[in-house]
Amino acid sequence: MNIAVICRILGLSLEVEGAFMLPALGIGLYKGEWGGVAGLSATMAVLLLCGLILRRIPVKRSEFYAREGLVTVGLTWVVLSIFGGLPFFISRDIPSFVDCFFETVSGFTTTGASIIPAVEALPKSLLYWRSFTNWLGGMGVLVFVLAVSSFAENSGDTLYLLRAESPGIKVGKLVPRMRKSSTILYAIYFGLSLAEFILLVIDMPVFDALCTVFATGGTGGFSVRNAGIAAYSVYSQRVITLFMLLFSVNFSVYYLLLLRKLRVALHNEELWAFVGIYVFSTLVIAADITKLMGSFATALHHSAFTVSSIISTTGFAISDFDTWPWLSKTMLVFIMFIGACAGSTGGGIKVVRALLAFKIIRRGTRRAIHPQEVRMVHMDGEAVEEETVDSVSAFLLVYVMLFVGAVLLLSLDHLDFTTTFSAVAACLNNIGPALGKAGPMLNYNCFSQPSKVLLSFAMLFGRLEVYPMLVLFVPAAWKK
Amino acid sequence: MNIAVICRILGLSLEVEGAFMLPALGIGLYKGEWGGVAGLSATMAVLLLCGLILRRIPVKRSEFYAREGLVTVGLTWVVLSIFGGLPFFISRDIPSFVDCFFETVSGFTTTGASIIPAVEALPKSLLYWRSFTNWLGGMGVLVFVLAVSSFAENSGDTLYLLRAESPGIKVGKLVPRMRKSSTILYAIYFGLSLAEFILLVIDMPVFDALCTVFATGGTGGFSVRNAGIAAYSVYSQRVITLFMLLFSVNFSVYYLLLLRKLRVALHNEELWAFVGIYVFSTLVIAADITKLMGSFATALHHSAFTVSSIISTTGFAISDFDTWPWLSKTMLVFIMFIGACAGSTGGGIKVVRALLAFKIIRRGTRRAIHPQEVRMVHMDGEAVEEETVDSVSAFLLVYVMLFVGAVLLLSLDHLDFTTTFSAVAACLNNIGPALGKAGPMLNYNCFSQPSKVLLSFAMLFGRLEVYPMLVLFVPAAWKK
Repeated sequence: MNIAVICRILGLSLEVEGAFMLPALGIGLYKGEWGGVAGLSATMAVLLLCGLILRRIPVKRSEFYAREGLVTVGLTWVVLSIFGGLPFFISRDIPSFVDCFFETVSGFTTTGASIIPAVEALPKSLLYWRSFTNWLGGMGVLVFVLAVSSFAENSGDTLYLLRAESPGIKVGKLVPRMRKSSTILYAIYFGLSLAEFILLVIDMPVFDALCTVFATGGTGGFSVRNAGIAAYSVYSQRVITLFMLLFSVNFSVYYLLLLRKLRVALHNEELWAFVGIYVFSTLVIAADITKLMGSFATALHHSAFTVSSIISTTGFAISDFDTWPWLSKTMLVFIMFIGACAGSTGGGIKVVRALLAFKIIRRGTRRAIHPQEVRMVHMDGEAVEEETVDSVSAFLLVYVMLFVGAVLLLSLDHLDFTTTFSAVAACLNNIGPALGKAGPMLNYNCFSQPSKVLLSFAMLFGRLEVYPMLVLFVPAAWKK
Repeated sequence: MNIAVICRILGLSLEVEGAFMLPALGIGLYKGEWGGVAGLSATMAVLLLCGLILRRIPVKRSEFYAREGLVTVGLTWVVLSIFGGLPFFISRDIPSFVDCFFETVSGFTTTGASIIPAVEALPKSLLYWRSFTNWLGGMGVLVFVLAVSSFAENSGDTLYLLRAESPGIKVGKLVPRMRKSSTILYAIYFGLSLAEFILLVIDMPVFDALCTVFATGGTGGFSVRNAGIAAYSVYSQRVITLFMLLFSVNFSVYYLLLLRKLRVALHNEELWAFVGIYVFSTLVIAADITKLMGSFATALHHSAFTVSSIISTTGFAISDFDTWPWLSKTMLVFIMFIGACAGSTGGGIKVVRALLAFKIIRRGTRRAIHPQEVRMVHMDGEAVEEETVDSVSAFLLVYVMLFVGAVLLLSLDHLDFTTTFSAVAACLNNIGPALGKAGPMLNYNCFSQPSKVLLSFAMLFGRLEVYPMLVLFVPAAWKK
């Protein structure tokens, strides 16, 4: 294990995190929020200092393989979350350190689960930083660090890092020129965010529009209002519905559209599966809640927003879906697991893996019927390598195992099954609000401190797609 | 598809089912239960007639492949369940036909889920038949039919049938001489049942002992008392605890013990994993319910019985585990999925598959850390073929998909998540009692008629390990 290189990247990441706190500090100074200013400036000083120290560790060997990539990503996300929570702790706005950690992990992993009962009580500067973590987490902190740093020159290193941090089954054809492609992805991210900001600022204060864009862009779901998105107009809710979906699509689709390769962009099974699941679920749930909402039109509005919020793994709420009929609630919980498309900012197992699982099942059934036949699994018209099929199977199994383990550990809190099950689902899949005692109108304070740490790690496991976190706990990864 | 051969096997199975009703009919005549006698004799007449007609269909071709094997098994189990429920319907003891079907499917699949609020109200003859379905279902109806019929001469046919009906990842080395090996397996089954009967009859009426043996042997769980196994002494409960475990072990272990191959018999990873899971879960749950039970000793008795009942997928209850703390309840629900060992009479995904899943996960993690390494999955010291690994992955994925689909459909009944989730788990894994409104002290009457049909099919999918049922619904299986 090449610890020195890992430390160097970690140090750089800490410095970048410090730099990202500057706008929040500016807001604090402008508004005269001295608690927030103290928290942010002290944290920035610590970050800079730690960064400088870590970066002074001499790098003797340049080797950097898959396991170094995984460990770097896992470790960096944990450490960034610890430091990212410091401003809340120093300013005393969140008195418990575990709560600070939970809230920041929730931000960076774009989960949006919160332990703050009334967010409007927070100073604007910290509220801004909280929402900004959603936006930062969306596209991957490390990819950004790499894009602006000299590490990006060595494409071997970055490929392993990119693989470890990026969602989806494999890093596609965009990769070869790492710096160029990440710049393009950031441009798309920025462009979409800007478009949403323009459409929202017509209808809400600049600060609210900006923070809402951060939370939508990262599919995070942190809101700056106690009432969440219910505080805004129907127009704003519709804009947010649309952009939650747009941020759930594989960004390579937009890249291909920019290159005017319309045919290639739309020849994407995952995209159509995503659209299919969205439309089907929205209609079923709308029908299920029509009686509750009074009319099908209102039901459709609420269903379209909520399904978009859940499948994109954003976690915004305009209604208390915990009071909806059980068909809707059960459907929402299972949609949590599917999540968004690979290569987007959303979480969950990703539509492409769900699709592959379905194809693996179909092949298994055909093999049972015709044992002699040899069949490949196909995707987008091409045969999928058996290695990829194996790794998707292994990923899905480890995902289920982690889920079951987390539910068992969380049930030590002796809350009901619905709360426990849905809370783990909502954290592992980076949604945010769950059902029962952790429903959309409540928060995660129903859980004990150890459980909050457990759920924080569930979020990290989910956002980083298991392995970068798992290696931190596997002794085999640390052996020579 | 060779329909003629399928019909012939189906016809023979119907005749055998009729013959199996004879003891129940005898009890009815002896006790003068004319309703039960009418129901049983009328059904026997219908079975014989249908059997005769089906067996007269001329068989032109002898081809019999995997898909014919699957279809035969799937179809036979559905048809046997329909006819097996007729006595209850004709005697008016269960007025709804759907309920009769549910109860009989529950019997044959060794689930033990019931819609009868007070079983003691049933005539003894029907109670006997009900318990006997557990025992019949345990070792597979078709395997028995084959063992006594001339079909067994053609080893190709029987292999496909045996594969389709037998639980586990593959039919082991016992197969080549079908008739001989099935005779040995039946001898073990009979011997274990006899041993349990002798130990139980000391302490309870002959009828109760016999029916309890049927339910334990098949890991079914039908009881002839309203209070279930709580009606019997602590001694009896301990005997039952032990035998539920014994019937959950792969029968080939006993076979090897009979051959005095102790070393080979104990060189069985699945067996030790099963023991490990059992001991661990029993201790954790005992600790969790100690406060509720008053002392650790009482807690251990209840925990040992209940975990044995759940992991063996029997479903007996001596206490209302629905009132236990959530850690215990959650653990029980997840143990439902693991189930018993392959090659036993128990249900669930089987310990060997859970073990393989764990090994697939471990390999996936190692591959993430060292992408270049090529690794095989090992079991009992031997490398497992990649084909087996693939088929286990596909099986686990289809199992999860069916589970999710069934939970979604069942939630149309608008019962709470705990009831819905645990009821599907208890039916798909062939346990019986669930949590909430379908808890061990309640029954499945909380569900609507369509839901009862759905749950019946969940039981069949679980008992036959998916594919024999799935092919009935897959158009590709029926194509030329």
